Amino acid sequence: MTMTDDLYPSRVGGGEQIIPRLDPVIHGPAPSGESPLDRDQLDCYEQNGYLVFPDLLPELVEPLQADIQRLRTELRGREELVREPQGDGLRTIFNPCRFSPQIDGLFRHPKVLPMVRQLLGSDVYLMQSRVNNKPAFRGRSFAWHSDFETWHVEDGMPRMRALTAWLMLNENSHYNGPLYVIPGSHKLYVSCRGRTGEDNYKSSLRQQTLGVPEPDTMREILREREIHAITGKPGTLVIHECNLLHGSPDNISGDPRQVVMCVYNSVENKPVAPYGAARPRPAFLSSRDYTPAAVA
Amino acid sequence: MTMTDDLYPSRVGGGEQIIPRLDPVIHGPAPSGESPLDRDQLDCYEQNGYLVFPDLLPELVEPLQADIQRLRTELRGREELVREPQGDGLRTIFNPCRFSPQIDGLFRHPKVLPMVRQLLGSDVYLMQSRVNNKPAFRGRSFAWHSDFETWHVEDGMPRMRALTAWLMLNENSHYNGPLYVIPGSHKLYVSCRGRTGEDNYKSSLRQQTLGVPEPDTMREILREREIHAITGKPGTLVIHECNLLHGSPDNISGDPRQVVMCVYNSVENKPVAPYGAARPRPAFLSSRDYTPAAVA
Repeated sequence: MTMTDDLYPSRVGGGEQIIPRLDPVIHGPAPSGESPLDRDQLDCYEQNGYLVFPDLLPELVEPLQADIQRLRTELRGREELVREPQGDGLRTIFNPCRFSPQIDGLFRHPKVLPMVRQLLGSDVYLMQSRVNNKPAFRGRSFAWHSDFETWHVEDGMPRMRALTAWLMLNENSHYNGPLYVIPGSHKLYVSCRGRTGEDNYKSSLRQQTLGVPEPDTMREILREREIHAITGKPGTLVIHECNLLHGSPDNISGDPRQVVMCVYNSVENKPVAPYGAARPRPAFLSSRDYTPAAVA
Repeated sequence: MTMTDDLYPSRVGGGEQIIPRLDPVIHGPAPSGESPLDRDQLDCYEQNGYLVFPDLLPELVEPLQADIQRLRTELRGREELVREPQGDGLRTIFNPCRFSPQIDGLFRHPKVLPMVRQLLGSDVYLMQSRVNNKPAFRGRSFAWHSDFETWHVEDGMPRMRALTAWLMLNENSHYNGPLYVIPGSHKLYVSCRGRTGEDNYKSSLRQQTLGVPEPDTMREILREREIHAITGKPGTLVIHECNLLHGSPDNISGDPRQVVMCVYNSVENKPVAPYGAARPRPAFLSSRDYTPAAVA
């Protein structure tokens, strides 16, 4: 790993500011007749920073749920299991692809991987996978953030050429703490205050405080943009760009909210030394296996 | 004040259970041609436990907002001002009617007071008033609760013959922590665990922990009922029954959510000694002035 110019400085000791995005949103060529995503879909992703595919993979919901139930027991005590900030409820399982052939199958699914390759314009590798679980009644919120900010500062991802594809495992409604996004926010980059402490991930995975834009910045971003809740039935797939601002409210409803997420990075965007941390996070958060993914 | 039979025991040392409501929902006679609420509205209130009047009093929004701004400064340091559980943001102003002729005017408004009298079937007095403020980005949630449970246990309100009328001072959307209700839940009473500590209100107004039904009870209630978010434009009036289960999620949006609430109790339902506390809460939370309200 070598250090390269920092195009997206954040948590480097200055004040918070909004700086321009220097990377394209779509890295692949114009679509052809055989492309999985057509012109309209690409335009939508370019403009909003995400795409929703209602009811795309309903047949995967039950097997994935069953396998996650198994992982909850089998992985007990390992650092891949992250609990809620208050209490003992399950918040996240990291790296489930390693432990579950079913989840690995989602990551390599013929309906998913070709779209990802098209958007990122290259072969891709699986940088991170996780199951996010927001328990009924007590699942706590996620603060506004751009994934890329963390991946850049803490993992050394140089450019914005990554995305997350995620599947709803139960209904995501307005009431059970759905993902809120700010369409169009992926075209800005918020350079945040603060400095990353050693092993920051150990607390930030429970409750993120660094890399969270301040209220004045959020107000400025929201002046000409709106919040949108991503809702849908189980089996709905969502793709969101690595720099899209998102967060989620807590879940005071009686329904848990569970999603499985796969983060893909372009093989042409391999991490270098972290831009704002002493050493990169563990491999279960940012894989060092850059093998190009193949369709299952 | 004399102690009377406790029809709705709660926080008396037993396990949590759901017990039946023994009081009618509508205490007034059948509507006549001159009644402010018609048969359909009464049926709706009886069945769901609340009524929404979109855009009923838009002309009050600006004067009330201005007066609340004044109160924020003038009441600084008094116990009527309650702050957020984390941080210093304003959460509630209690008893604003005492300090603001405009808010007192809402409470006595000719479009409001006659409906309240019709539902409660008697003269009424103002038991409590408050401004609820949920700041942008950091306004925290309210746990599920029935107001009546607290008023019964901590203030000695004997029967379910009270209600809250409240006005939206800005848009209440899905995103800024709107009031969630469970239609029909006012017909059940959840007798809660725990015992009320001395001066419980000093912490409960910031974050309520007693009188909050447990997840298993909430799951049972939600088995045949749904959560509904009450949304609307500024100037929308809502009336909700004293035993309706409600709560609200936190506000991670950029828009504050502000409402002003007036609690009316029937003059035939005056408090006795608290059913589960050593002494009643202060008058700013439960008035001892039972003068029947007159239309302004």
